[in-house]
Amino acid sequence: MRALDIIRTKRDGQVLTREAIDAFVTGVTDGTWPDYQVSALLMAIFLKGMTLDEATDLTQAMVHSGLALDWSELTAARGTVAVDKHSTGGVGDKTSLVLAPLAAACGAIVPMMSGRGLGHTGGTLDKLAAIPGFRTDLTLAAMRTALVQTGCVLIRQTADVAPADRKLYALRDATSTVESKPLIASSILSKKVTEGIGALVMDVKVGSGGFMTDINDARELARWLVGIAARSGVRTEAFLTRMDTPLGLRVGNSNEVLEAIATLKGEGPADVEALSVHLAARMLVMSGVASADEAESQVRAALTSGRGLEKFAAIITAQGGDARVIDDPSLMPMADREILIRAPRSGFVSRIHAGMVGHAAVVLGAGRDHVEAVIDHGVGIDVLAPEGTAVREGDPVLRVIYRDTDRLETARARLTAAVEVADVAPTPAPLILETIHAIDAIHAQETSR
Amino acid sequence: MRALDIIRTKRDGQVLTREAIDAFVTGVTDGTWPDYQVSALLMAIFLKGMTLDEATDLTQAMVHSGLALDWSELTAARGTVAVDKHSTGGVGDKTSLVLAPLAAACGAIVPMMSGRGLGHTGGTLDKLAAIPGFRTDLTLAAMRTALVQTGCVLIRQTADVAPADRKLYALRDATSTVESKPLIASSILSKKVTEGIGALVMDVKVGSGGFMTDINDARELARWLVGIAARSGVRTEAFLTRMDTPLGLRVGNSNEVLEAIATLKGEGPADVEALSVHLAARMLVMSGVASADEAESQVRAALTSGRGLEKFAAIITAQGGDARVIDDPSLMPMADREILIRAPRSGFVSRIHAGMVGHAAVVLGAGRDHVEAVIDHGVGIDVLAPEGTAVREGDPVLRVIYRDTDRLETARARLTAAVEVADVAPTPAPLILETIHAIDAIHAQETSR
Repeated sequence: MRALDIIRTKRDGQVLTREAIDAFVTGVTDGTWPDYQVSALLMAIFLKGMTLDEATDLTQAMVHSGLALDWSELTAARGTVAVDKHSTGGVGDKTSLVLAPLAAACGAIVPMMSGRGLGHTGGTLDKLAAIPGFRTDLTLAAMRTALVQTGCVLIRQTADVAPADRKLYALRDATSTVESKPLIASSILSKKVTEGIGALVMDVKVGSGGFMTDINDARELARWLVGIAARSGVRTEAFLTRMDTPLGLRVGNSNEVLEAIATLKGEGPADVEALSVHLAARMLVMSGVASADEAESQVRAALTSGRGLEKFAAIITAQGGDARVIDDPSLMPMADREILIRAPRSGFVSRIHAGMVGHAAVVLGAGRDHVEAVIDHGVGIDVLAPEGTAVREGDPVLRVIYRDTDRLETARARLTAAVEVADVAPTPAPLILETIHAIDAIHAQETSR
Repeated sequence: MRALDIIRTKRDGQVLTREAIDAFVTGVTDGTWPDYQVSALLMAIFLKGMTLDEATDLTQAMVHSGLALDWSELTAARGTVAVDKHSTGGVGDKTSLVLAPLAAACGAIVPMMSGRGLGHTGGTLDKLAAIPGFRTDLTLAAMRTALVQTGCVLIRQTADVAPADRKLYALRDATSTVESKPLIASSILSKKVTEGIGALVMDVKVGSGGFMTDINDARELARWLVGIAARSGVRTEAFLTRMDTPLGLRVGNSNEVLEAIATLKGEGPADVEALSVHLAARMLVMSGVASADEAESQVRAALTSGRGLEKFAAIITAQGGDARVIDDPSLMPMADREILIRAPRSGFVSRIHAGMVGHAAVVLGAGRDHVEAVIDHGVGIDVLAPEGTAVREGDPVLRVIYRDTDRLETARARLTAAVEVADVAPTPAPLILETIHAIDAIHAQETSR
């Protein structure tokens, strides 16, 4: 099929066949479609949209543009499928570090591959890389060994994973065609489906610290994600979760690992524990490891018994890291300079703006503002007085752990603006806002056209 | 202004400022906008449209991307402006070869620059190049000399003319973004405005042999052309003219030159003469050479007196051609093989399908199906029994002048299909369907948004 005809079809608002989408993705992968044709089609898709079938075909074609993994020899005997969780990214979101060991401790196979963190939400792998010796760049052979050993592995996507997605994303980024929900969903899922999973739990963050700030946008994206995954044979459900304020009390890398460890010890913040336990339980259900009735109690048992913590230690060891960090926080890199952000008046902390905290963390060096930026694992922000806390003027609200004085000044201005104190305590809001099931997502997609 | 922001603005359906359009065209011209950003913006323009102001700004920016000519030293003393005619292209359309000498003979300054003919409609320069020695690739100095000498010059656009348009057209052609009326109109006008004209008469063809087959499309394009030209300070009007059947009786290159010469001798087909005289008269009016009352009689006088023919001879000579072709048709290259296409039954010739005849001419070698194709000036098609002629079965309807037998076979099939004979004579249809004035065009553009 000629590129010109495929572009014209979408330009005219018609539906692309699977053959057309395959031809497109093949052309992207092997370079026979020049970039200017690819970007013209991307803009046409952006403006004319896609059907669920088209987005599914695009996802599948991107999966098949590279290596696809298969863990059925590990899961078939247990009557389960491999399972992963994906979050669209949030400030202070270290749930992967808690729920992956918990799910694996309950018998799930969790082959988690992630991209590099970019922007204000940080990345799971950057947090893990704060652990001395921890390697995220395992070969596929080493990945398999680790997965057999512990049931869970957390590594960086290799260049073999969905290479078409990598090219498409770079072009979308350079042509203002990023914010298309079917393209976003296809991009995310092409990398997840490649992992060889049969089940997936999605955490779609909503709020100032999330990828989507509007709940309608988040719901729509969640429906695309769940719909495409279901059509691709991956059992999936999505949760819209609140991301107006940081999750937990620590934002950074080393400090987030320590908070994840504390949570696995039963000593973590309630929101991190609750979300991690809930998502881990849903992973067990979706993958067939546990029934809906028993999943949560199994996860709770793994938490209270310490088996989740042991599993995390085993994962760290299997990936070359120093598991002694679990008992000795001083082994984690930590900057040695601190300042406090204080309450500007007496009252109740009414807001700690997740987006501003996330951006301040990037300024400090805890995240990347561009792809090549180097992470400083030892800097970050600790919340001393979370939303709802009664404070007097001058009480510390945030602790800023920093290394560079110039960076501190920019971050301090943002963090000062991020904190609000009011006369009355804010109304507590639920963390999990909505659940998006596959059947509803597919129905919504089909009736919206 | 950043490319990403400009693309996003148009993507979101907003209006681009002049600064944004200038930044875009500058980026195209100097290569700082990569092709993939250019094509993303072209697709966004295609799908979201442009305002008349935006299309005018785009036209002006493309004009200023290259050399702009100025003939005011030739026209100011006469109180006129330089004038041109542009046709969107039709089968058998040799009117430029008739009206340009006629207008120049009446005192108009006609600096006509054209692109290379492509597709089924042929090109004026390809026809002129059939004249032995005729040069269409004059330098600007030689162009000026010829214009001073004869008042008219017909040459090929140099690489200096609107280079941004050339790059944009190539990308549009490769990304299915050709058929956007504001982009088409900007492209045409950028090259016309560059000529240094102050007046322009547009012939927008409608029908199977034209660029637009639907009259509504043609009207819309004409409004864009006239509106942009008016906003650019060029007095313009457009005529929608019928192009269902070839114009005149000869389609090719040498044979069309001979038909133009015959017309200038007063011996041409009525449609070619009528359209040429009308358009030439409007050129005189728009350029200030003659009043609306007197223009047509002045053109008629130039025709009947033979001054138009003399002017054509002078133009040929000034551009290095052999003007003896005017009296000696045998000097024109002509293939020596012929076949006839005959009436399949008795009745009236009800249709000679212009589009099919044009495509057959390309097959024979009279036109280009790709940019590098070499023209065979001596091949073509003559209409022996035009629409409305009473014929008996087996009477000749078309003469095919050819050189290559393989090409003939393909052309013959198309030409056989192009001829229809019916029981009753077709109703004669007017040649000029509508006139589009600047004031109406601008009004229509402004109220359509």
